[in-house]
Amino acid sequence: MKKYITIHPWKIIENDFHPQYKRISESIFSIGNGKMGMRGNFEEEYSGDSLQGNYLAGIYYPDKTKVGWWKNGYPEYFAKVLNAVNWISLNIKINGQTLDLDKCDISDYKAVLDMKESVLYREFKVKFKKGESIIVQSQRFYSMDEDDLGVLKYSIYAENFTGKIEIESITDFNVVNEDTNYGEKFWKGISTKVNNQIGIVTAMTKKTEFVVSCITSNKVFLNDEIHKIDSMPSKKPQRFSHSYSIDVKRGDVVSIEKYAATVSSFFYPKEDLHKIGEKLIEKSMRDNFSSIKDRHIKKWSQIWDKSDIKIKGDDSAQQAIRYNILQLNQTYTGKDSRLNIGPKGFTGEKYGGSTYWDTEAYCLPVYLYTSDKKVSENLLQYRYNHLPKAIENAEKLGFKNGAALYPMVTMNGEECHNEWEITFEEIHRNGAIAYAIFNYTRFTGDNSYLYSKGLEVLIGISRFWAQRFSFSCKRQSYVMLGVTGPNEYENNVNNNWYTNYIARWCLTYTTKTLKKLKKKDIESYRAIVKKTKLKENKELKLWGKIASNVYFPSDKKRKVFLQQSNFLDKTLRAASTLSDDERPISQKWSWDRILRSCFIKQADVLQGLYFFSDKFSKKELKKNFNFYEPMTVHESSLSPCVHSILANKIGRKEKAYEMFLRTSRLDLDDINNDTEDGCHITSMAGTILSVFEGFGGISVAKNKLNINPQLPEYWKGLEFKINFRETPLKIVIKKKKITLINYSKAKFDLTLNNKKVILKEGKNVFILNEN
Amino acid sequence: MKKYITIHPWKIIENDFHPQYKRISESIFSIGNGKMGMRGNFEEEYSGDSLQGNYLAGIYYPDKTKVGWWKNGYPEYFAKVLNAVNWISLNIKINGQTLDLDKCDISDYKAVLDMKESVLYREFKVKFKKGESIIVQSQRFYSMDEDDLGVLKYSIYAENFTGKIEIESITDFNVVNEDTNYGEKFWKGISTKVNNQIGIVTAMTKKTEFVVSCITSNKVFLNDEIHKIDSMPSKKPQRFSHSYSIDVKRGDVVSIEKYAATVSSFFYPKEDLHKIGEKLIEKSMRDNFSSIKDRHIKKWSQIWDKSDIKIKGDDSAQQAIRYNILQLNQTYTGKDSRLNIGPKGFTGEKYGGSTYWDTEAYCLPVYLYTSDKKVSENLLQYRYNHLPKAIENAEKLGFKNGAALYPMVTMNGEECHNEWEITFEEIHRNGAIAYAIFNYTRFTGDNSYLYSKGLEVLIGISRFWAQRFSFSCKRQSYVMLGVTGPNEYENNVNNNWYTNYIARWCLTYTTKTLKKLKKKDIESYRAIVKKTKLKENKELKLWGKIASNVYFPSDKKRKVFLQQSNFLDKTLRAASTLSDDERPISQKWSWDRILRSCFIKQADVLQGLYFFSDKFSKKELKKNFNFYEPMTVHESSLSPCVHSILANKIGRKEKAYEMFLRTSRLDLDDINNDTEDGCHITSMAGTILSVFEGFGGISVAKNKLNINPQLPEYWKGLEFKINFRETPLKIVIKKKKITLINYSKAKFDLTLNNKKVILKEGKNVFILNEN
Repeated sequence: MKKYITIHPWKIIENDFHPQYKRISESIFSIGNGKMGMRGNFEEEYSGDSLQGNYLAGIYYPDKTKVGWWKNGYPEYFAKVLNAVNWISLNIKINGQTLDLDKCDISDYKAVLDMKESVLYREFKVKFKKGESIIVQSQRFYSMDEDDLGVLKYSIYAENFTGKIEIESITDFNVVNEDTNYGEKFWKGISTKVNNQIGIVTAMTKKTEFVVSCITSNKVFLNDEIHKIDSMPSKKPQRFSHSYSIDVKRGDVVSIEKYAATVSSFFYPKEDLHKIGEKLIEKSMRDNFSSIKDRHIKKWSQIWDKSDIKIKGDDSAQQAIRYNILQLNQTYTGKDSRLNIGPKGFTGEKYGGSTYWDTEAYCLPVYLYTSDKKVSENLLQYRYNHLPKAIENAEKLGFKNGAALYPMVTMNGEECHNEWEITFEEIHRNGAIAYAIFNYTRFTGDNSYLYSKGLEVLIGISRFWAQRFSFSCKRQSYVMLGVTGPNEYENNVNNNWYTNYIARWCLTYTTKTLKKLKKKDIESYRAIVKKTKLKENKELKLWGKIASNVYFPSDKKRKVFLQQSNFLDKTLRAASTLSDDERPISQKWSWDRILRSCFIKQADVLQGLYFFSDKFSKKELKKNFNFYEPMTVHESSLSPCVHSILANKIGRKEKAYEMFLRTSRLDLDDINNDTEDGCHITSMAGTILSVFEGFGGISVAKNKLNINPQLPEYWKGLEFKINFRETPLKIVIKKKKITLINYSKAKFDLTLNNKKVILKEGKNVFILNEN
Repeated sequence: MKKYITIHPWKIIENDFHPQYKRISESIFSIGNGKMGMRGNFEEEYSGDSLQGNYLAGIYYPDKTKVGWWKNGYPEYFAKVLNAVNWISLNIKINGQTLDLDKCDISDYKAVLDMKESVLYREFKVKFKKGESIIVQSQRFYSMDEDDLGVLKYSIYAENFTGKIEIESITDFNVVNEDTNYGEKFWKGISTKVNNQIGIVTAMTKKTEFVVSCITSNKVFLNDEIHKIDSMPSKKPQRFSHSYSIDVKRGDVVSIEKYAATVSSFFYPKEDLHKIGEKLIEKSMRDNFSSIKDRHIKKWSQIWDKSDIKIKGDDSAQQAIRYNILQLNQTYTGKDSRLNIGPKGFTGEKYGGSTYWDTEAYCLPVYLYTSDKKVSENLLQYRYNHLPKAIENAEKLGFKNGAALYPMVTMNGEECHNEWEITFEEIHRNGAIAYAIFNYTRFTGDNSYLYSKGLEVLIGISRFWAQRFSFSCKRQSYVMLGVTGPNEYENNVNNNWYTNYIARWCLTYTTKTLKKLKKKDIESYRAIVKKTKLKENKELKLWGKIASNVYFPSDKKRKVFLQQSNFLDKTLRAASTLSDDERPISQKWSWDRILRSCFIKQADVLQGLYFFSDKFSKKELKKNFNFYEPMTVHESSLSPCVHSILANKIGRKEKAYEMFLRTSRLDLDDINNDTEDGCHITSMAGTILSVFEGFGGISVAKNKLNINPQLPEYWKGLEFKINFRETPLKIVIKKKKITLINYSKAKFDLTLNNKKVILKEGKNVFILNEN
């Protein structure tokens, strides 16, 4: 836990340079536009510890799997997001002395990530050995308006000297990933060209053969006037630069603007990359920095208009929640169904930038609330695209007849993970993927995706469940053996309650949906039956037979559902009995000890109660929450958010706020000591959910929107917009009243604190009972 | 399964060269003397596929662990037996043409491993392109008499030409392991010296810094006369050679004898290696080949005298059983308690040459039967030496107060394995290590090891069990969660019957032994209590409390013990229902599917019934055997032997013989398609046990030797010696009678087919009832 970021409602501020937190700050100050993103690396040379990272959506390398003992069925490779061309690099010399913050005497350092703008600013003062003093100001962004474009502006004020400022503006494709299994380089150079105006470097990923070109050009200013000066182009393998040598007098300001187009064959034909990039750079050079920046900020203001959350009376929470919204939107904009949301987004290499079930469980609902439904639909489409590979994946593991097992970790639909207890057994991911289809349909009220594509996915997944359940003679019911639930601190258990529940739900939901479609549109129904080769009688009958007789472990005495068949064989104890030096147990305990213990990494039974909360009574929620939460160590970043939401549902406001604090400032305060690897992007989505669904009390049941707000003691107000079934709403919660603004022309009815209310167009004010 | 080895009672014969089986033959034709061993590589150059291997006892390299996802508690390295200096290499040219069996026209090829002699012979005829024809005869052995010495003799008969034979005799330390995690070289050269007579190359292992010197010298003969000729010494890094150029006429025979001393710092001070090696080579050069060989063979005849098993009427079984005896004795001679028996011995790199529980479960009893008790005691001493590291290992996993967990795989006492389900959970190995102490004591009737050292080990292991059991409120008894039993096709199960049983036994045995010692020798008792800081009241009381209330899963209806708590949740089916293309399931099925299935890799409940067979009725044995054996796929080489023994115990003679066939010719017929990696040395011990304890019917109960012979239909007779409590016995079993020769002066009483009999000195003949 660190506390070096200054609190501000709209800005992330690092006052003073903290070299010891360099990697953490690099993660925190990441910028991105959904198509590209980069860590908060310095433009100028930095010889201290740093993790250089600039990542491009969709571009990955299949790194050869590293495994101690091979198990049949393991994937050959692990797809990895790639550190790509470094175009921000500026080598700066002041009277021959290199500017390097690891070696210089720095003062007045300040880094600011302006969240409203998604622009990273830095400024600092440097005194050189020979006495020269400069003040540097920099800013950069990845344009949200022109999404292949990155721009930076870097100004040097010659405070007290006359002499020479040299700037080498470098574009370098000699980059590596720190995280490689066998120390391989992932890029090979294709070409490098440079002239006085412009340079272009092109490289290709090995194996996957993605081609990426980076085209850059610079403008140099002296005291805000264009400075016509020789650009001294130079070229090395996979790298080019332009160098400028400027004579300055005391008080002069030298600035450089750098425009970089990064274009990849993921989006454009290989043969067009140079042309597209050059055209963009030429256009940008003709344009000017401030108008490019304005257009970028305008796009962001549109995002903020839809997705901002205002928290009154708690700037720390306000800063945190906006940071979460910013980073999620920097990672994914929902334009392209081939893309998804890696747990670290564009902020680090860890987890390979691949897709986990986090997307369906935590991210998709946020986009449902805040974006056009096309965005969430693209996330569903992503899995639809991968259905054939999910079927292949299941076949590899011995399943048949179109059963689909979606990968635990993937880039292109193929499984990338290689621990048997996860890869082969953490199959509940299939459940979350099915649930997302339901969730989307329920929230949007639009069945068209479900009937046209969702059903195919549901059929594949249901087939998997039907084969994965087996009949136990002993229990005379269907059991699911050898699984790992969301709580990865238990492996290879039988009858994980959550998995059994979501699997059964999936069988029932698929069957119901098929029946509905059959009634509604027999043509479409027949088409899907034909396409999926569904044996209506045999398969649906079996699904029904299983669904009506699934074994669910429970403790009748305690009146709780049991995480798995043998949970009560364990010695139960509260996590609070763990001493500080035993935590986190993932680092302090051996794996077997963790597995034997009752300690829970993240919501498991509770994850089920969260997904299906309208199916359980408040009493059931309470019993289970009070049983499991004390044993939960929350060592997954995805744990506190679900607990925060559930705690609100059962009226445990203090606990809800405690859990919110743990999740909302996870990266800003480096709570888990791992922000240096990158930010927890998908967990940020969970935090946003904990505001919408927890404090905001938003839910959907019986086709209606429900609002049961629960403001924490410390908050004076909470305000956000959602877009439910094409009705845009603004929700303004205060301690004693709630204002609901209906932006549609039509009346809108919902439940507010369990009472039906009808919203007229415009403002609707309701007084809240204190509770 | 292959059938290219010619059947012969004393010889392993390959007629005709099988390049496609080259690696298999290299494994099969391995020689060794317990201190060194080498694969059946060719002396002359061979450009085809081959696994070069020459291994030295005790010399290992800690290869950096390769693991996909690190778990807290994993070891940093995996100790690996090292391919060491290649001294057999002869580069031979006939009129300038290189002799290379991958490229030459070969006929009359024959390789023979003479098991009586432990000498590898080869002969073959080669016709060169230009018409020269030669006949080659070679032989080599690792001396059992002079155990740092290797000797080879290589003769070339110039059948049809006059010309030149050139021989370069090479000693080369530029060797690699095929099995490296990161492609590292494990040796670094120290020095190379060569003169006209002798050469010496010295290298050191990286990290472990074992130093090994190899000193070689040659004698060249023309038509059996010493041929005085220039030796043309030459030197390269880590390699030297002597070259001889001999003019021959048609009908001449050129021979070279090569003497190689390989001496290591594992046995001698580093600074003495050169001197010791040179002295040995000088002595050997003064001596002559046939007398060195005679002394070697004489030592082997002593081994055979004690350990030979004669099978009448089944040459295939006879060859196999002798091959197993040969290889086991080539691997381990019991002279040094720092050494142990790797699953592949000196015949390959796989499993790193490290020690597994195989030693205690399968090998130690064979040495008990056939060798001086000092040999088995050394195997016990090996674990005693490692007790402090076993305690450290347990501490790493969170155990306290002197609890000891022996490693699953080790070279020097530290754990080398890195799969959590094995490393941390396959803890029954501790049981086998405790059982071996009991077994040794029971068989030898000698308590001295038990009381002086064994008890310390037993206390450490008992402490581990006491901490590893936990009390289940649900079951109101002690349970053991999260283990992997001997059947590695189930992982992370609860209450593995075998583990619970051997753990409880261990607690009881340790307590009883302590009590006995206290009565017998209060001084020694107090010394052990003090040394181990045993809290007599507290610890023994707890052990008693646990032992009296351990949970054992069972099926009351079927009257069988259950392999683990949830075994009956599985769908039960016979292995015979698997189709051929599904087997072995380890290669054809994904791991999760294997884990969910009822299929058993090797004896698990049955391993317990085997170890403690005197505690169970024949009916219990039968019930359990008939329940589990049909579900057993025997995909561990250690499985069939135990089943063969148990099948004999319950009178299923056909099954016993079927299982014996599977184990006895495992390598000679390459039954599991993996002999190319090396021979299954520890499983060979199991095969020998299946003769002694299965067909021979030897057991010990109530302090007496029992013999209940069960000759297979196909055998006319079975004959072997054992040494029970200092009484050497010869047992000659025929269909209808058994002859027992008592070599001691005293009378000896035992049970024969459940009847008490007393043996007088010398021959005792008993008529057997047919059964």
